[in-house]
Amino acid sequence: MNRLQLIEQIQQKKSFLCIGLDADLDKIPAHLLSFDDPVFEFNKQLIDATHSYCVAYKPNTAFYESRGVEGWKSLEKTIEYLNQHYPKLFTIADAKRGDIGNTSQLYAKAFFEALPFDSITVAPYMGEDSVKPFLAYPNKWVIVLALTSNKGADDFQFTSTDENEKQLLFQKVIRKTSLWGTDQNLMFVVGATRPEMLLEIRKLIPTHFLLVPGVGAQGGSLKEVAKYGMTKQCGLLVNASRSIIFADSSVNFAQSAAVEAKKMQQEMSELLSEYSANEN
Amino acid sequence: MNRLQLIEQIQQKKSFLCIGLDADLDKIPAHLLSFDDPVFEFNKQLIDATHSYCVAYKPNTAFYESRGVEGWKSLEKTIEYLNQHYPKLFTIADAKRGDIGNTSQLYAKAFFEALPFDSITVAPYMGEDSVKPFLAYPNKWVIVLALTSNKGADDFQFTSTDENEKQLLFQKVIRKTSLWGTDQNLMFVVGATRPEMLLEIRKLIPTHFLLVPGVGAQGGSLKEVAKYGMTKQCGLLVNASRSIIFADSSVNFAQSAAVEAKKMQQEMSELLSEYSANEN
Repeated sequence: MNRLQLIEQIQQKKSFLCIGLDADLDKIPAHLLSFDDPVFEFNKQLIDATHSYCVAYKPNTAFYESRGVEGWKSLEKTIEYLNQHYPKLFTIADAKRGDIGNTSQLYAKAFFEALPFDSITVAPYMGEDSVKPFLAYPNKWVIVLALTSNKGADDFQFTSTDENEKQLLFQKVIRKTSLWGTDQNLMFVVGATRPEMLLEIRKLIPTHFLLVPGVGAQGGSLKEVAKYGMTKQCGLLVNASRSIIFADSSVNFAQSAAVEAKKMQQEMSELLSEYSANEN
Repeated sequence: MNRLQLIEQIQQKKSFLCIGLDADLDKIPAHLLSFDDPVFEFNKQLIDATHSYCVAYKPNTAFYESRGVEGWKSLEKTIEYLNQHYPKLFTIADAKRGDIGNTSQLYAKAFFEALPFDSITVAPYMGEDSVKPFLAYPNKWVIVLALTSNKGADDFQFTSTDENEKQLLFQKVIRKTSLWGTDQNLMFVVGATRPEMLLEIRKLIPTHFLLVPGVGAQGGSLKEVAKYGMTKQCGLLVNASRSIIFADSSVNFAQSAAVEAKKMQQEMSELLSEYSANEN
């Protein structure tokens, strides 16, 4: 999927919601456990119920790998289902991969070919040759971890760096990594739990899309993210996982998820009017 | 596996060789392609032929994930085979994972339970809560990326940091991360392509094991790694992949791999005498 198609989706749906398909087998509704593949069934029903309110789906691979081969099968069925039934939705493999060049090529093959996702999250620690192989695929995206939403982000990401005392490591990551691609094939992860950093980040990358986790269960504010991070063309994909997909553990879980997704979409619609549409 | 058991293996075999099971389907001997699972067959024959000369095996997950569900099956069969037939060998899932705390827990489940490896490589960028869940498993190990062997290591790992102008990011990673565990459950990846850094690293972590990639195809020197990095109890696992596993693409590939592994073991035996045994 290219940038224009993504922006069109956002404008049509008045939403920049990404739903995290973090299908924890211990948390999905009990009645699904009788299905051959309960996790796929959970995802399928969620997707069917929520697709009008979001523009992207993001399975985190950990939830699938923790179930071994069976989990990998559920992930494969999920991306196939999405591509077949909802090809206009943007898909993100939240895999946080990264390895030396020839090995990252194989991760690109894993998540752009074997599992045909539109994008993958990538860890920057190993540098350019670990990121570039993903960028060689046309209409595919790399989403680089910059400033994550967790407590551990403090440990290294806020380290002051050499070239400029005021440049923190995550800013160096953004500055340097943004030279390896364009706003047509690169996005950055910036946690909603640090909205005050978004103004500084927008000085470095005024037009790139940001994938923003941390709204909802982790405590980030959607309004603040939009206020500080939104661009003329939106430039945001805000993820919610647990607050939507585990809104309800009854047989009505998918409808309850749709209600939560719709609430977020409505809030997003207002934020788009306030911070984005007027400038178009 | 605990530290003592690993050290015993090293002393018995006079080897600190780790063999990287990076089974690229495009490179394995053609006659194996008629097997149901050519990659597992390749690994099995390699392991049977080389296990006397090494103390560890390290599949890099990218080579398996690039083949989707089939690849994950090959990986599962490989670790099962190792655990069943060679339980004394140390096993490393070279997965370079890392995510927020509750998600890293699931990666720990993936690589310590669903796939019962002894250890996993982990990327440090997301900090403490991304590393700690792996450390909760007794007799399992976390191997943190510190200084990698690739060119991209220059991009961020050598960044000078705040607290001390002479402290580079990879040194900060080692210093900080080493507080989260002990030399009984933590190792670090340090590439053989920077042997001159090993002296400095040994000042920070005099007793931890280091996993050292980059000898062989990537150009690192085994002798220099031993000279600067070896401790009284060895403290090194030096990995070789391509130079051993793809030494020969004929039907004799496993014997040729054994010849290469034995060569390295013999060199290692001498290095152990020179830099380690005298101090025991």
